[in-house]
Amino acid sequence: MKLGRVRGTVVSTAHHPAYDGHKVLLVDPVDERGQITGEPIVAVDHVQAGVGDWVLVNQEGGGTRLVLTGRADGVLPIRSLVVGIVDEVDVP
Amino acid sequence: MKLGRVRGTVVSTAHHPAYDGHKVLLVDPVDERGQITGEPIVAVDHVQAGVGDWVLVNQEGGGTRLVLTGRADGVLPIRSLVVGIVDEVDVP
Amino acid sequence: MKLGRVRGTVVSTAHHPAYDGHKVLLVDPVDERGQITGEPIVAVDHVQAGVGDWVLVNQEGGGTRLVLTGRADGVLPIRSLVVGIVDEVDVP
Amino acid sequence: MKLGRVRGTVVSTAHHPAYDGHKVLLVDPVDERGQITGEPIVAVDHVQAGVGDWVLVNQEGGGTRLVLTGRADGVLPIRSLVVGIVDEVDVP
Amino acid sequence: MKLGRVRGTVVSTAHHPAYDGHKVLLVDPVDERGQITGEPIVAVDHVQAGVGDWVLVNQEGGGTRLVLTGRADGVLPIRSLVVGIVDEVDVP
Repeated sequence: MKLGRVRGTVVSTAHHPAYDGHKVLLVDPVDERGQITGEPIVAVDHVQAGVGDWVLVNQEGGGTRLVLTGRADGVLPIRSLVVGIVDEVDVP
Repeated sequence: MKLGRVRGTVVSTAHHPAYDGHKVLLVDPVDERGQITGEPIVAVDHVQAGVGDWVLVNQEGGGTRLVLTGRADGVLPIRSLVVGIVDEVDVP
Repeated sequence: MKLGRVRGTVVSTAHHPAYDGHKVLLVDPVDERGQITGEPIVAVDHVQAGVGDWVLVNQEGGGTRLVLTGRADGVLPIRSLVVGIVDEVDVP
Repeated sequence: MKLGRVRGTVVSTAHHPAYDGHKVLLVDPVDERGQITGEPIVAVDHVQAGVGDWVLVNQEGGGTRLVLTGRADGVLPIRSLVVGIVDEVDVP
Repeated sequence: MKLGRVRGTVVSTAHHPAYDGHKVLLVDPVDERGQITGEPIVAVDHVQAGVGDWVLVNQEGGGTRLVLTGRADGVLPIRSLVVGIVDEVDVP
Protein backbone atom coordinates (compact mmCIF):
# COMPACT_ATOMS: atom_id res chain seq x y z
CA MET A 1 0.00 0.00 0.00
CA LYS A 2 0.98 3.65 -0.24
CA LEU A 3 0.45 6.76 1.77
CA GLY A 4 -1.10 9.41 -0.46
CA ARG A 5 -2.72 12.83 -0.59
CA VAL A 6 -5.73 13.43 -2.82
CA ARG A 7 -4.92 16.00 -5.50
CA GLY A 8 -8.11 15.99 -7.53
CA THR A 9 -11.00 14.15 -9.11
CA VAL A 10 -11.04 12.40 -12.48
CA VAL A 11 -14.21 12.87 -14.53
CA SER A 12 -14.90 10.19 -17.14
CA THR A 13 -18.24 9.86 -18.93
CA ALA A 14 -17.33 6.97 -21.23
CA HIS A 15 -16.07 4.21 -18.99
CA HIS A 16 -16.46 0.53 -18.17
CA PRO A 17 -19.77 0.10 -16.26
CA ALA A 18 -17.88 -1.09 -13.17
CA TYR A 19 -16.96 2.57 -12.59
CA ASP A 20 -20.62 3.70 -12.44
CA GLY A 21 -21.32 5.55 -9.22
CA HIS A 22 -17.73 5.56 -8.04
CA LYS A 23 -15.65 8.65 -7.35
CA VAL A 24 -12.28 8.39 -9.08
CA LEU A 25 -9.45 10.24 -7.35
CA LEU A 26 -6.03 11.42 -8.47
CA VAL A 27 -3.67 10.78 -5.57
CA ASP A 28 -0.05 11.78 -5.02
CA PRO A 29 2.06 9.26 -3.12
CA VAL A 30 3.71 11.15 -0.27
CA ASP A 31 5.98 10.61 2.69
CA GLU A 32 5.06 11.62 6.24
CA ARG A 33 6.08 15.24 5.60
CA GLY A 34 3.87 15.45 2.51
CA GLN A 35 6.72 15.33 0.01
CA ILE A 36 5.65 13.63 -3.22
CA THR A 37 7.57 10.38 -3.66
CA GLY A 38 6.47 9.02 -7.02
CA GLU A 39 4.04 8.99 -9.94
CA PRO A 40 0.40 10.00 -9.35
CA ILE A 41 -2.05 7.15 -8.81
CA VAL A 42 -5.67 6.99 -9.89
CA ALA A 43 -7.83 5.14 -7.37
CA VAL A 44 -11.51 4.58 -6.70
CA ASP A 45 -12.71 6.02 -3.39
CA HIS A 46 -14.14 3.69 -0.75
CA VAL A 47 -13.98 5.92 2.35
CA GLN A 48 -15.54 9.24 1.23
CA ALA A 49 -12.18 10.91 0.85
CA GLY A 50 -11.92 14.39 -0.61
CA VAL A 51 -9.31 16.69 -2.10
CA GLY A 52 -6.51 17.39 0.36
CA ASP A 53 -7.16 14.32 2.50
CA TRP A 54 -4.28 12.04 3.37
CA VAL A 55 -5.24 8.51 2.46
CA LEU A 56 -4.14 4.89 2.35
CA VAL A 57 -4.23 3.39 -1.16
CA ASN A 58 -4.24 -0.34 -1.86
CA GLN A 59 -3.15 -1.35 -5.36
CA GLU A 60 -4.31 -4.93 -5.90
CA GLY A 61 -7.08 -6.07 -8.19
CA GLY A 62 -8.16 -9.19 -6.32
CA GLY A 63 -8.82 -7.37 -3.08
CA THR A 64 -10.64 -4.52 -4.80
CA ARG A 65 -12.80 -6.99 -6.71
CA LEU A 66 -13.77 -8.80 -3.49
CA VAL A 67 -14.56 -5.53 -1.71
CA LEU A 68 -16.65 -4.00 -4.49
CA THR A 69 -18.40 -7.08 -5.92
CA GLY A 70 -18.16 -9.60 -3.07
CA ARG A 71 -16.84 -12.21 -5.49
CA ALA A 72 -13.42 -13.32 -6.71
CA ASP A 73 -14.82 -13.45 -10.25
CA GLY A 74 -16.77 -10.19 -10.26
CA VAL A 75 -16.22 -8.39 -13.58
CA LEU A 76 -14.39 -5.32 -12.31
CA PRO A 77 -11.36 -3.71 -13.96
CA ILE A 78 -10.39 -1.60 -10.93
CA ARG A 79 -7.02 -2.22 -9.30
CA SER A 80 -6.53 0.69 -6.91
CA LEU A 81 -8.80 1.52 -3.99
CA VAL A 82 -8.65 4.23 -1.33
CA VAL A 83 -9.12 2.10 1.80
CA GLY A 84 -8.47 4.55 4.63
CA ILE A 85 -8.30 8.20 5.61
CA VAL A 86 -5.07 8.88 7.46
CA ASP A 87 -5.32 10.92 10.65
CA GLU A 88 -1.67 10.96 11.47
CA VAL A 89 1.66 9.41 10.62
CA ASP A 90 3.60 8.87 13.79
CA VAL A 91 7.34 9.07 13.10
CA PRO A 92 9.37 9.35 16.32
CA MET B 1 -4.81 2.84 -12.27
CA LYS B 2 -3.11 5.62 -14.14
CA LEU B 3 -4.14 8.75 -15.95
CA GLY B 4 -2.74 8.62 -19.49
CA ARG B 5 -2.76 10.23 -22.91
CA VAL B 6 -2.77 8.07 -26.02
CA ARG B 7 0.40 8.63 -28.04
CA GLY B 8 -0.04 6.08 -30.82
CA THR B 9 -1.09 2.66 -32.02
CA VAL B 10 0.96 -0.53 -31.92
CA VAL B 11 0.68 -2.75 -35.00
CA SER B 12 1.52 -6.41 -34.48
CA THR B 13 0.75 -9.10 -37.06
CA ALA B 14 2.30 -12.06 -35.22
CA HIS B 15 0.67 -12.14 -31.81
CA HIS B 16 -1.13 -14.36 -29.34
CA PRO B 17 -4.69 -14.95 -30.67
CA ALA B 18 -6.16 -13.18 -27.63
CA TYR B 19 -5.10 -9.92 -29.30
CA ASP B 20 -7.15 -10.60 -32.46
CA GLY B 21 -9.51 -7.74 -33.17
CA HIS B 22 -8.22 -5.51 -30.39
CA LYS B 23 -6.65 -2.10 -30.87
CA VAL B 24 -3.37 -1.85 -28.98
CA LEU B 25 -2.47 1.64 -27.78
CA LEU B 26 0.77 3.26 -26.65
CA VAL B 27 -0.14 5.51 -23.72
CA ASP B 28 1.94 8.05 -21.79
CA PRO B 29 1.15 8.31 -18.10
CA VAL B 30 0.50 11.98 -17.37
CA ASP B 31 -0.47 14.29 -14.55
CA GLU B 32 -3.43 16.68 -14.74
CA ARG B 33 -1.38 19.22 -16.68
CA GLY B 34 -0.38 16.64 -19.29
CA GLN B 35 3.21 16.31 -18.08
CA ILE B 36 4.53 12.80 -18.67
CA THR B 37 5.19 11.11 -15.33
CA GLY B 38 6.69 7.73 -16.21
CA GLU B 39 7.39 4.98 -18.75
CA PRO B 40 4.99 4.49 -21.67
CA ILE B 41 2.35 1.78 -21.21
CA VAL B 42 0.91 -0.50 -23.87
CA ALA B 43 -2.78 -1.21 -23.28
CA VAL B 44 -5.68 -2.78 -25.15
CA ASP B 45 -8.51 -0.37 -25.89
CA HIS B 46 -11.96 -1.04 -24.43
CA VAL B 47 -13.62 2.37 -24.85
CA GLN B 48 -12.88 3.36 -28.47
CA ALA B 49 -10.11 5.72 -27.48
CA GLY B 50 -7.96 7.40 -30.12
CA VAL B 51 -4.65 9.23 -30.38
CA GLY B 52 -4.61 12.34 -28.20
CA ASP B 53 -7.40 11.18 -25.91
CA TRP B 54 -6.89 11.33 -22.16
CA VAL B 55 -7.69 7.95 -20.71
CA LEU B 56 -7.87 5.85 -17.58
CA VAL B 57 -5.68 2.72 -17.74
CA ASN B 58 -6.10 -0.27 -15.45
CA GLN B 59 -3.08 -2.56 -15.15
CA GLU B 60 -4.30 -5.84 -13.67
CA GLY B 61 -4.59 -9.13 -15.48
CA GLY B 62 -7.43 -10.67 -13.51
CA GLY B 63 -9.80 -7.79 -14.16
CA THR B 64 -8.89 -7.59 -17.85
CA ARG B 65 -9.43 -11.34 -18.21
CA LEU B 66 -12.88 -11.13 -16.64
CA VAL B 67 -13.87 -8.16 -18.81
CA LEU B 68 -12.66 -9.60 -22.12
CA THR B 69 -13.45 -13.33 -21.67
CA GLY B 70 -16.09 -13.30 -18.92
CA ARG B 71 -14.13 -15.95 -17.03
CA ALA B 72 -11.42 -15.99 -14.37
CA ASP B 73 -9.65 -18.75 -16.33
CA GLY B 74 -10.00 -17.34 -19.84
CA VAL B 75 -6.71 -17.76 -21.72
CA LEU B 76 -5.76 -14.13 -22.18
CA PRO B 77 -2.26 -12.68 -21.74
CA ILE B 78 -3.39 -9.05 -21.57
CA ARG B 79 -2.73 -7.10 -18.37
CA SER B 80 -3.48 -3.48 -19.27
CA LEU B 81 -6.83 -2.17 -20.44
CA VAL B 82 -8.04 1.32 -21.32
CA VAL B 83 -11.22 1.48 -19.21
CA GLY B 84 -12.30 5.10 -19.53
CA ILE B 85 -12.01 8.28 -21.57
CA VAL B 86 -11.23 11.19 -19.28
CA ASP B 87 -13.24 14.37 -19.82
CA GLU B 88 -11.62 16.43 -17.14
CA VAL B 89 -9.35 16.26 -14.13
CA ASP B 90 -10.66 18.57 -11.48
CA VAL B 91 -7.82 19.90 -9.32
CA PRO B 92 -8.91 22.81 -7.13
CA MET C 1 9.94 -8.97 -1.40
CA LYS C 2 11.91 -6.03 -0.08
CA LEU C 3 14.26 -5.37 2.76
CA GLY C 4 12.96 -2.43 4.77
CA ARG C 5 13.32 -0.39 7.92
CA VAL C 6 10.24 0.76 9.82
CA ARG C 7 10.03 4.56 9.89
CA GLY C 8 6.72 5.10 11.63
CA THR C 9 3.12 4.14 12.21
CA VAL C 10 0.09 5.17 10.16
CA VAL C 11 -3.02 6.08 12.17
CA SER C 12 -6.31 5.79 10.31
CA THR C 13 -9.69 5.92 12.05
CA ALA C 14 -11.89 5.70 8.96
CA HIS C 15 -10.79 2.59 7.12
CA HIS C 16 -12.06 -0.60 5.51
CA PRO C 17 -12.97 -3.02 8.33
CA ALA C 18 -10.25 -5.46 7.20
CA TYR C 19 -7.76 -3.08 8.83
CA ASP C 20 -9.41 -3.33 12.27
CA GLY C 21 -6.92 -4.39 14.91
CA HIS C 22 -3.91 -4.27 12.60
CA LYS C 23 -0.88 -2.06 13.05
CA VAL C 24 -0.09 -0.21 9.83
CA LEU C 25 3.58 0.63 9.32
CA LEU C 26 5.43 3.09 7.11
CA VAL C 27 8.54 1.30 5.86
CA ASP C 28 11.53 2.56 3.90
CA PRO C 29 13.02 0.08 1.45
CA VAL C 30 16.75 -0.11 2.22
CA ASP C 31 19.89 -1.90 1.13
CA GLU C 32 22.13 -3.83 3.54
CA ARG C 33 23.83 -0.61 4.69
CA GLY C 34 20.51 1.04 5.48
CA GLN C 35 20.53 3.38 2.49
CA ILE C 36 17.00 4.09 1.29
CA THR C 37 16.51 2.62 -2.18
CA GLY C 38 13.00 3.67 -3.21
CA GLU C 39 9.57 5.00 -2.33
CA PRO C 40 8.17 4.36 1.17
CA ILE C 41 5.82 1.38 1.52
CA VAL C 42 2.81 1.07 3.80
CA ALA C 43 2.40 -2.48 5.14
CA VAL C 44 0.36 -4.26 7.78
CA ASP C 45 2.44 -5.79 10.56
CA HIS C 46 2.36 -9.56 11.08
CA VAL C 47 5.48 -10.06 13.24
CA GLN C 48 5.18 -7.42 16.00
CA ALA C 49 7.70 -5.13 14.33
CA GLY C 50 8.35 -1.66 15.71
CA VAL C 51 9.92 1.62 14.62
CA GLY C 52 13.57 1.17 13.72
CA ASP C 53 13.30 -2.59 13.08
CA TRP C 54 14.69 -4.00 9.88
CA VAL C 55 12.00 -6.08 8.25
CA LEU C 56 11.05 -8.23 5.29
CA VAL C 57 8.02 -6.93 3.38
CA ASN C 58 5.96 -9.04 0.97
CA GLN C 59 3.85 -7.11 -1.52
CA GLU C 60 1.27 -9.53 -2.91
CA GLY C 61 -2.43 -9.50 -2.21
CA GLY C 62 -3.17 -13.19 -2.65
CA GLY C 63 -0.62 -14.27 -0.06
CA THR C 64 -1.69 -11.61 2.42
CA ARG C 65 -5.33 -12.60 1.99
CA LEU C 66 -4.54 -16.27 2.67
CA VAL C 67 -2.43 -15.41 5.73
CA LEU C 68 -4.92 -13.00 7.31
CA THR C 69 -8.26 -14.63 6.37
CA GLY C 70 -7.29 -18.23 5.64
CA ARG C 71 -9.19 -18.07 2.36
CA ALA C 72 -8.40 -17.16 -1.23
CA ASP C 73 -11.67 -15.20 -1.37
CA GLY C 74 -11.49 -13.44 1.98
CA VAL C 75 -12.59 -9.82 1.56
CA LEU C 76 -9.33 -8.07 2.38
CA PRO C 77 -7.90 -5.06 0.54
CA ILE C 78 -4.40 -5.40 2.00
CA ARG C 79 -1.52 -6.05 -0.36
CA SER C 80 1.62 -5.53 1.72
CA LEU C 81 2.54 -7.50 4.82
CA VAL C 82 5.56 -7.37 7.11
CA VAL C 83 6.46 -11.09 7.21
CA GLY C 84 9.80 -11.13 9.06
CA ILE C 85 12.10 -9.20 11.36
CA VAL C 86 15.59 -9.14 9.90
CA ASP C 87 18.44 -9.95 12.29
CA GLU C 88 21.24 -9.54 9.84
CA VAL C 89 22.05 -9.17 6.16
CA ASP C 90 25.14 -11.18 5.39
CA VAL C 91 27.03 -9.61 2.47
CA PRO C 92 30.54 -11.07 2.12
CA MET D 1 2.15 -4.38 -21.25
CA LYS D 2 5.30 -2.82 -22.57
CA LEU D 3 6.84 -2.15 -25.93
CA GLY D 4 10.30 -3.71 -26.03
CA ARG D 5 13.28 -4.58 -28.19
CA VAL D 6 15.05 -7.90 -27.72
CA ARG D 7 18.64 -7.35 -26.61
CA GLY D 8 19.81 -10.92 -26.06
CA THR D 9 19.19 -14.43 -24.83
CA VAL D 10 19.54 -15.71 -21.29
CA VAL D 11 21.12 -19.16 -20.93
CA SER D 12 20.28 -21.04 -17.74
CA THR D 13 21.06 -24.73 -17.26
CA ALA D 14 19.87 -25.07 -13.67
CA HIS D 15 16.29 -23.83 -13.63
CA HIS D 16 12.77 -24.71 -12.56
CA PRO D 17 11.45 -27.40 -14.96
CA ALA D 18 8.72 -25.03 -16.19
CA TYR D 19 11.45 -23.28 -18.19
CA ASP D 20 12.40 -26.46 -20.11
CA GLY D 21 12.21 -25.90 -23.84
CA HIS D 22 11.52 -22.19 -23.59
CA LYS D 23 13.69 -19.43 -24.99
CA VAL D 24 14.35 -16.76 -22.38
CA LEU D 25 14.89 -13.26 -23.73
CA LEU D 26 16.44 -10.10 -22.30
CA VAL D 27 14.27 -7.23 -23.50
CA ASP D 28 14.75 -3.46 -23.23
CA PRO D 29 11.56 -1.46 -22.76
CA VAL D 30 11.56 1.24 -25.45
CA ASP D 31 9.45 4.07 -26.76
CA GLU D 32 8.39 4.36 -30.41
CA ARG D 33 11.76 5.85 -31.39
CA GLY D 34 13.67 2.98 -29.78
CA GLN D 35 14.86 4.98 -26.77
CA ILE D 36 15.21 2.76 -23.72
CA THR D 37 12.67 3.82 -21.08
CA GLY D 38 13.37 1.59 -18.08
CA GLU D 39 15.00 -1.49 -16.55
CA PRO D 40 15.60 -4.55 -18.74
CA ILE D 41 12.93 -7.28 -18.55
CA VAL D 42 13.46 -11.02 -18.82
CA ALA D 43 10.59 -12.75 -20.62
CA VAL D 44 9.83 -16.15 -22.08
CA ASP D 45 9.27 -16.11 -25.83
CA HIS D 46 5.90 -17.19 -27.22
CA VAL D 47 6.08 -15.78 -30.76
CA GLN D 48 9.50 -16.88 -32.08
CA ALA D 49 11.06 -13.50 -31.51
CA GLY D 50 14.79 -12.96 -32.04
CA VAL D 51 17.47 -10.45 -31.13
CA GLY D 52 16.65 -6.99 -32.50
CA ASP D 53 12.94 -7.65 -32.88
CA TRP D 54 10.48 -5.13 -31.46
CA VAL D 55 8.04 -6.99 -29.28
CA LEU D 56 5.04 -6.69 -26.97
CA VAL D 57 5.69 -8.02 -23.47
CA ASN D 58 2.95 -8.94 -21.00
CA GLN D 59 3.96 -9.07 -17.34
CA GLU D 60 1.28 -11.01 -15.49
CA GLY D 61 1.61 -14.46 -14.04
CA GLY D 62 -1.99 -15.58 -14.28
CA GLY D 63 -2.20 -14.98 -18.02
CA THR D 64 1.16 -16.60 -18.69
CA ARG D 65 0.16 -19.64 -16.64
CA LEU D 66 -3.08 -20.03 -18.61
CA VAL D 67 -1.29 -19.67 -21.96
CA LEU D 68 1.56 -22.09 -21.20
CA THR D 69 -0.22 -24.73 -19.08
CA GLY D 70 -3.91 -24.25 -20.01
CA ARG D 71 -4.80 -24.15 -16.30
CA ALA D 72 -5.14 -21.47 -13.64
CA ASP D 73 -3.30 -23.77 -11.23
CA GLY D 74 -0.52 -24.98 -13.51
CA VAL D 75 2.79 -24.98 -11.60
CA LEU D 76 4.63 -22.32 -13.55
CA PRO D 77 6.81 -19.58 -12.05
CA ILE D 78 6.92 -17.44 -15.20
CA ARG D 79 5.46 -13.94 -15.05
CA SER D 80 6.59 -12.28 -18.28
CA LEU D 81 5.75 -13.47 -21.78
CA VAL D 82 6.58 -12.08 -25.22
CA VAL D 83 3.10 -12.09 -26.79
CA GLY D 84 3.61 -10.23 -30.07
CA ILE D 85 6.13 -9.08 -32.64
CA VAL D 86 5.62 -5.41 -33.36
CA ASP D 87 5.62 -4.38 -37.03
CA GLU D 88 5.14 -0.71 -36.49
CA VAL D 89 4.22 1.90 -33.91
CA ASP D 90 2.02 4.48 -35.51
CA VAL D 91 2.49 7.87 -33.82
CA PRO D 92 0.94 10.72 -35.83
CA MET E 1 11.26 -11.67 -14.55
CA LYS E 2 14.58 -10.02 -13.88
CA LEU E 3 18.21 -10.86 -14.36
CA GLY E 4 20.00 -10.53 -11.03
CA ARG E 5 23.21 -11.13 -9.13
CA VAL E 6 23.08 -12.41 -5.56
CA ARG E 7 24.59 -9.87 -3.18
CA GLY E 8 23.97 -11.53 0.17
CA THR E 9 21.77 -13.51 2.50
CA VAL E 10 19.00 -12.19 4.72
CA VAL E 11 18.82 -13.74 8.21
CA SER E 12 15.44 -13.52 9.94
CA THR E 13 14.59 -15.47 13.08
CA ALA E 14 11.08 -14.12 13.64
CA HIS E 15 9.20 -14.74 10.42
CA HIS E 16 6.01 -16.20 8.99
CA PRO E 17 6.32 -20.02 9.15
CA ALA E 18 6.19 -20.27 5.33
CA TYR E 19 9.81 -19.05 5.36
CA ASP E 20 11.00 -21.98 7.54
CA GLY E 21 13.83 -23.85 5.86
CA HIS E 22 14.16 -21.42 2.99
CA LYS E 23 17.26 -19.41 2.14
CA VAL E 24 16.37 -15.75 1.61
CA LEU E 25 18.63 -13.88 -0.81
CA LEU E 26 19.32 -10.21 -1.44
CA VAL E 27 19.62 -9.82 -5.21
CA ASP E 28 20.66 -6.84 -7.34
CA PRO E 29 18.88 -6.53 -10.67
CA VAL E 30 21.59 -6.22 -13.34
CA ASP E 31 22.02 -5.91 -17.08
CA GLU E 32 24.20 -8.30 -19.12
CA ARG E 33 27.35 -6.40 -18.15
CA GLY E 34 26.56 -6.65 -14.46
CA GLN E 35 25.55 -3.00 -14.05
CA ILE E 36 22.90 -2.61 -11.36
CA THR E 37 19.66 -1.41 -12.94
CA GLY E 38 17.26 -0.93 -10.04
CA GLU E 39 16.32 -1.47 -6.41
CA PRO E 40 17.54 -4.63 -4.63
CA ILE E 41 15.09 -7.53 -4.49
CA VAL E 42 14.65 -10.06 -1.71
CA ALA E 43 13.80 -13.53 -3.05
CA VAL E 44 13.56 -17.07 -1.74
CA ASP E 45 16.04 -19.46 -3.32
CA HIS E 46 14.75 -22.46 -5.29
CA VAL E 47 17.87 -23.45 -7.24
CA GLN E 48 20.66 -23.53 -4.62
CA ALA E 49 22.07 -20.19 -5.68
CA GLY E 50 24.85 -18.54 -3.70
CA VAL E 51 26.45 -15.13 -3.31
CA GLY E 52 27.89 -13.88 -6.60
CA ASP E 53 25.72 -16.12 -8.79
CA TRP E 54 23.81 -14.59 -11.65
CA VAL E 55 20.21 -15.65 -11.36
CA LEU E 56 16.75 -15.38 -12.84
CA VAL E 57 14.16 -13.98 -10.41
CA ASN E 58 10.40 -14.35 -10.85
CA GLN E 59 8.25 -11.88 -8.93
CA GLU E 60 4.72 -13.28 -8.84
CA GLY E 61 2.95 -14.69 -5.83
CA GLY E 62 0.65 -17.14 -7.58
CA GLY E 63 3.48 -18.98 -9.29
CA THR E 64 5.62 -19.08 -6.16
CA ARG E 65 2.68 -20.42 -4.15
CA LEU E 66 2.07 -23.21 -6.68
CA VAL E 67 5.78 -24.14 -6.78
CA LEU E 68 6.33 -24.17 -3.02
CA THR E 69 2.98 -25.53 -1.77
CA GLY E 70 1.55 -27.29 -4.83
CA ARG E 71 -1.75 -25.46 -4.32
CA ALA E 72 -3.29 -22.20 -5.52
CA ASP E 73 -4.55 -21.61 -1.96
CA GLY E 74 -1.45 -22.59 -0.02
CA VAL E 75 -0.86 -20.07 2.78
CA LEU E 76 2.41 -18.57 1.63
CA PRO E 77 3.33 -14.88 1.71
CA ILE E 78 6.30 -15.18 -0.64
CA ARG E 79 6.19 -13.29 -3.92
CA SER E 80 9.73 -13.55 -5.31
CA LEU E 81 11.53 -16.76 -6.18
CA VAL E 82 14.96 -17.44 -7.65
CA VAL E 83 14.02 -19.83 -10.46
CA GLY E 84 17.26 -20.26 -12.40
CA ILE E 85 21.04 -19.88 -12.28
CA VAL E 86 22.21 -17.95 -15.33
CA ASP E 87 25.22 -19.38 -17.17
CA GLU E 88 25.46 -16.72 -19.80
CA VAL E 89 23.64 -13.80 -21.36
CA ASP E 90 24.16 -13.88 -25.08
CA VAL E 91 24.04 -10.34 -26.51
CA PRO E 92 25.32 -10.21 -30.10
